[in-house]
Amino acid sequence: MSILVVGTIGLDDIETPFGSVRSELGGSATHFSAAAALYAPVNLVSVVGTDLAPERLDFLRQRGVDTRGVQVVEGQTFRWSGRYHFDMNSRDTLDTQLNVYANFVPRLPEDYGKSQFVFLANMDPEQQRQVLEQVRAPVLTMMDTMDLWIRTRREELDRIIGMVDMVTMNDSEVRMFADTTSIAVGARLILAMGPRAILVKKGENGAVMFTRDNQFFAAPAYPLEEVRDPTGAGDSFAGGFMGYLASSDGTEDDVFKRAVIHGSAVASFCVEDFGVQRLQTLTRGEVDRRYSEFHTFTQFEPL
Amino acid sequence: MSILVVGTIGLDDIETPFGSVRSELGGSATHFSAAAALYAPVNLVSVVGTDLAPERLDFLRQRGVDTRGVQVVEGQTFRWSGRYHFDMNSRDTLDTQLNVYANFVPRLPEDYGKSQFVFLANMDPEQQRQVLEQVRAPVLTMMDTMDLWIRTRREELDRIIGMVDMVTMNDSEVRMFADTTSIAVGARLILAMGPRAILVKKGENGAVMFTRDNQFFAAPAYPLEEVRDPTGAGDSFAGGFMGYLASSDGTEDDVFKRAVIHGSAVASFCVEDFGVQRLQTLTRGEVDRRYSEFHTFTQFEPL
Repeated sequence: MSILVVGTIGLDDIETPFGSVRSELGGSATHFSAAAALYAPVNLVSVVGTDLAPERLDFLRQRGVDTRGVQVVEGQTFRWSGRYHFDMNSRDTLDTQLNVYANFVPRLPEDYGKSQFVFLANMDPEQQRQVLEQVRAPVLTMMDTMDLWIRTRREELDRIIGMVDMVTMNDSEVRMFADTTSIAVGARLILAMGPRAILVKKGENGAVMFTRDNQFFAAPAYPLEEVRDPTGAGDSFAGGFMGYLASSDGTEDDVFKRAVIHGSAVASFCVEDFGVQRLQTLTRGEVDRRYSEFHTFTQFEPL
Repeated sequence: MSILVVGTIGLDDIETPFGSVRSELGGSATHFSAAAALYAPVNLVSVVGTDLAPERLDFLRQRGVDTRGVQVVEGQTFRWSGRYHFDMNSRDTLDTQLNVYANFVPRLPEDYGKSQFVFLANMDPEQQRQVLEQVRAPVLTMMDTMDLWIRTRREELDRIIGMVDMVTMNDSEVRMFADTTSIAVGARLILAMGPRAILVKKGENGAVMFTRDNQFFAAPAYPLEEVRDPTGAGDSFAGGFMGYLASSDGTEDDVFKRAVIHGSAVASFCVEDFGVQRLQTLTRGEVDRRYSEFHTFTQFEPL
């Protein structure tokens, strides 16, 4: 089954304790696509400026990503600049230039509307709604968001949360959204708004999933000795998660659990190098081997 | 098999967003004993002042804790005062009064030396060494420590780490000890000093264990909606962990994994109320039921 993703393609300037890069290919849709395409065909909707050399997206096309939905507009591509601190869990955004993304109206090529799985990457909730209205009969829709929309677009955000099957947020965003210290309380509040499940990303502490039928699932992060660049971890996590679902039969809780582990495995590769460098060379075989390592890391005998 | 614990018995003044208590019974040895005694006989070595009414330790004795090793000294019992912030992950120590603990020389009743399992709670590494020298043939020794000793007693701390079978630390302490952002790197460094395993406590993010034979195991925290008081979580975790080991046959990695889950389960009860209030009423049956919940939270199908 095919996946639709709508989000940014950008150029990132990134500093971490392990080095720095300039104009590195990034963006939520780039990371998501690179991950999800390891599992299933991906339809990509985004916008870039005329400054982005078309061949920079070649690796996505070679992996089976349909880029007809990427609008090319006169002007500069979205740019983000950030710096990670010693502990790699916190970062400062030094600069964000929306550029061509500022006036982005997501328009889906006609056949994209048949995509069964839909990922609405972090963007204005109004844009997320516009995308959803162009999809005909999705099997599963998932959305991401960020502190900016929680603060400035709460009404629109609440509305789109009520329309999707799944929400993914960072732990700090869940706390902010629900005004609570407890992730469990925040997750319950969000599930009460409609979604079937919420996937909470916790960086080096892994991820947890809460589902409407009161199920909880926790996945650790892979115990990496060196995290070179955390950028894109959340989007590649979502890509591995949804990619696995799209490649599987069924969407029962058991499949969801395996999908969380696939997402965790893909994200653990993403952070091994800057931008999408590691994802570009990543193979499904490598992900599967890490999946099996996750199994060893977490399984124990029943009582 | 029996367990020896050496650590503090104290009176705590605690403030959290959910309330406050004064002169609440606390201390590392109290929390550890209350937890471990659910599984196996515990020999307790500590010191209290004449201000502590002897009946405050009755619940421990009723649970099978031998308190003959608790010295009673003219003066005031150890006191700690702390305040937890909104997110419950950080706390300020407002005051620490060592009182009778200042001149504490751990002396084991003769028969305590036969204890097979030994927990050296957080204390001066020199005191920890004094305890170890009084134990004849332990099956497993484990020690805790804190930032103070990492900063001020590094040489003595390194020596005791080289003498024990297991180390337990918070994630921030591992980072400080090894001067690294990576828990995996820090754990490898500590294992290279001698211990067979290190248990890293991460509060609401659970716990991870690294063993010398390159094994890794991760346990999530129980998804509590309300954490009333995190005080003692680490020591009750250690108590559940070592208690389970002492009640089991063998110390293979599989038993260690189950022990980590028992520790996580006991700690999740500890934080439900102030001090040891919840541990006082806790039964092994309740812990076992939560163990099974942990199993559901973490198990997924292999590839």
